[in-house]
Amino acid sequence: MPASLLTGPALLDRIDALAAISAEEGRLSRLYLTPEHRRANDLVGQWMREAGMSVREDAVGNVIGRYEGERPGLPALLIGSHLDTVRDAGRYDGMLGVLTGIAVVADLHARGRRLSHAVEVIGFGDEEGTRFQSTLIGSRAIAGTFDPAVLEARDGDGLRLADAMARFGLDPAGWTAAAYRREEVLAYAELHIEQGPVLEALGRPVGVVSAIAGATRLAVTVDGMAGHAGTVPMTLRRDALAAAADMILAVEELCSGQDRLVGTVGRIEASPGATNVIPGRVRFTIDLRADRDPLRLERVAAVRTRLEAIADARGVSVAFETLHESPAVACHPALMAQFAAAAAAEGLDAPELPSGAGHDAMAVAALTDVAMLFVRCERGISHNPAERITAADAEAGARVLARFVERFQPPTDRLP
Amino acid sequence: MPASLLTGPALLDRIDALAAISAEEGRLSRLYLTPEHRRANDLVGQWMREAGMSVREDAVGNVIGRYEGERPGLPALLIGSHLDTVRDAGRYDGMLGVLTGIAVVADLHARGRRLSHAVEVIGFGDEEGTRFQSTLIGSRAIAGTFDPAVLEARDGDGLRLADAMARFGLDPAGWTAAAYRREEVLAYAELHIEQGPVLEALGRPVGVVSAIAGATRLAVTVDGMAGHAGTVPMTLRRDALAAAADMILAVEELCSGQDRLVGTVGRIEASPGATNVIPGRVRFTIDLRADRDPLRLERVAAVRTRLEAIADARGVSVAFETLHESPAVACHPALMAQFAAAAAAEGLDAPELPSGAGHDAMAVAALTDVAMLFVRCERGISHNPAERITAADAEAGARVLARFVERFQPPTDRLP
Repeated sequence: MPASLLTGPALLDRIDALAAISAEEGRLSRLYLTPEHRRANDLVGQWMREAGMSVREDAVGNVIGRYEGERPGLPALLIGSHLDTVRDAGRYDGMLGVLTGIAVVADLHARGRRLSHAVEVIGFGDEEGTRFQSTLIGSRAIAGTFDPAVLEARDGDGLRLADAMARFGLDPAGWTAAAYRREEVLAYAELHIEQGPVLEALGRPVGVVSAIAGATRLAVTVDGMAGHAGTVPMTLRRDALAAAADMILAVEELCSGQDRLVGTVGRIEASPGATNVIPGRVRFTIDLRADRDPLRLERVAAVRTRLEAIADARGVSVAFETLHESPAVACHPALMAQFAAAAAAEGLDAPELPSGAGHDAMAVAALTDVAMLFVRCERGISHNPAERITAADAEAGARVLARFVERFQPPTDRLP
Repeated sequence: MPASLLTGPALLDRIDALAAISAEEGRLSRLYLTPEHRRANDLVGQWMREAGMSVREDAVGNVIGRYEGERPGLPALLIGSHLDTVRDAGRYDGMLGVLTGIAVVADLHARGRRLSHAVEVIGFGDEEGTRFQSTLIGSRAIAGTFDPAVLEARDGDGLRLADAMARFGLDPAGWTAAAYRREEVLAYAELHIEQGPVLEALGRPVGVVSAIAGATRLAVTVDGMAGHAGTVPMTLRRDALAAAADMILAVEELCSGQDRLVGTVGRIEASPGATNVIPGRVRFTIDLRADRDPLRLERVAAVRTRLEAIADARGVSVAFETLHESPAVACHPALMAQFAAAAAAEGLDAPELPSGAGHDAMAVAALTDVAMLFVRCERGISHNPAERITAADAEAGARVLARFVERFQPPTDRLP
């Protein structure tokens, strides 16, 4: 296998070849357990074999290549990401991590290099959840946290996941076999496009992920008093929208000044919603994320306290409903340090940044320690055909991953 | 005619009798040129005759009673308000002004009192515009500003206004005959419920209107940049909703601290409008009213300047569209002073306040100088069956109007 697979153009050629496997002409849509999934697994499996790996498809349709270490049967460093896409997707989200993993192994193989550990490269069958509205099926299965209730989920055509597995050639009852045993695994590393604008803004091709952010989503209801826009003086108003405006700025302020925290009001609705009527009720949402749970929980509490104070001061009431709550998943500091050192050896200063979006690493963290390397993408655009990275950045990411894998040392402690 | 018509209970009895004339069982809906309008004109005309007035129905369906002065044919003080309602209306809005006018004349008549001017009481057929979506048809017609294009307007059943007039027994081509000649008229006075909470807050039964506020309505569009709520740091955002929140508070601030000014953001819409997406575009409305046009225009300019500065500071763009613009109609200071003196003679301190809502007086101002007396209503509620006033306040309003009419002096100058 030529070392040239570690070059940007070679990686992007394979990205393009994989992107050609789609359910739709002219745009990329590749869903879990579809004929496209089968063709993608076949192509990726072929590339894995060419890279010197033994290849298997596991009980939920993940494709896995194994490159043995200095002797057969050593525990493995896992490298993975996903092969499924959203509808009308970009071509890097997920796939770049799988293809750089294969390229790194191909390079070891070409040099006849064996490590003190095995390397397994995993192409997860489902991360996006596009088909069955249940994300991370592939990575949950290998981590042993797959929820069998999901077997009853149905796709847009009413087909059950269990039946789709059977049609794909899998045994729907056999999913437990996909889980790794802990002693087989040393750690998990994932390379992924950033899907955000931070590295571009910093002018850095790669970054080391500190954690996958935890999230709290709240629905907020503000009740004031509706009234005639002409006849109620400003001093006698209890305007729910003016109060909500105050609250939105408070969310922005309380979530600013901290690199590792973001807060967003994405939806808003004012009632009755007429030009000449003072709004009596406003509903809006808050999405608050942080890479550390104590910070997030403290900020959520601070937001609630501040919003209640605003409501009091304005003579309106405010009520909260928690829509969603997910904890942060920390990357292992020892693995982060190894990624940073690998970047430095490539002459790159890789800044630390949290991941605001979810990734397979979130699920794999239930099995083993995880780390992630982000590659810069254009304007942070993702889940969109305009998703784009440069060949140079793809190559930088692959070279940093190669050094990380070759110098890999398992963490001596396991994160709680 | 008994002087007791100037008492609260007598007035409210008539209010209730008139409110019984409705197109709908159990709720008040009385639209222009309907059979209910005919029945209301008949009842009101009968009351006018009982009060010693000659009664006519004019070319657009207004019912008008005339009480001659010391000699026949003297120019008249006009007293009016409207007899039509919104759907599911309150019973005081409009009708109270007509019935107090009749009660005042009945009182003069009972005492055999003739004034140095005639008094005409007008029950306008259309102020609300509920049926043909064109407000103030009655008062525009008497002022000579009726727009004949409105004859082609259609009601919810597709019937043209012209045809509805014919069915009512009017000549659709004869509307010009409704206009008063200037020399026939000395001034116009209207008593109306406040439809706002100011008098209640001040603890005053009646108030003298300074002007009917002018209004500017703007549609505002803020364009920022949509983005992933998890992956875009606060410092890299151009959040259209956070900018809009800043702008809404600026509108509130710039319209506060001035008795005669109000500003309202009644509608808002954020796109794309998902919990986990930073809003890229927000549209909202501004309704700004003031009783003096220079103040309103200066504030509108100040709002635009401030919103542009907010947009600049936040890296978003803002665009404005003017949806509506109407000038203020000032009440004549000499007439306001006569209303205040009449209130004082009744032992009442009548504060000055602007009217934020529109009234027939707005249209009549094109014909003659106008003045309005507001009567306190419960919690400012109007256009709603919960609209309510007390018998004591109805009586206070009627007594102030009676003194105003009896002591009336025409203004020596005409407002521009």
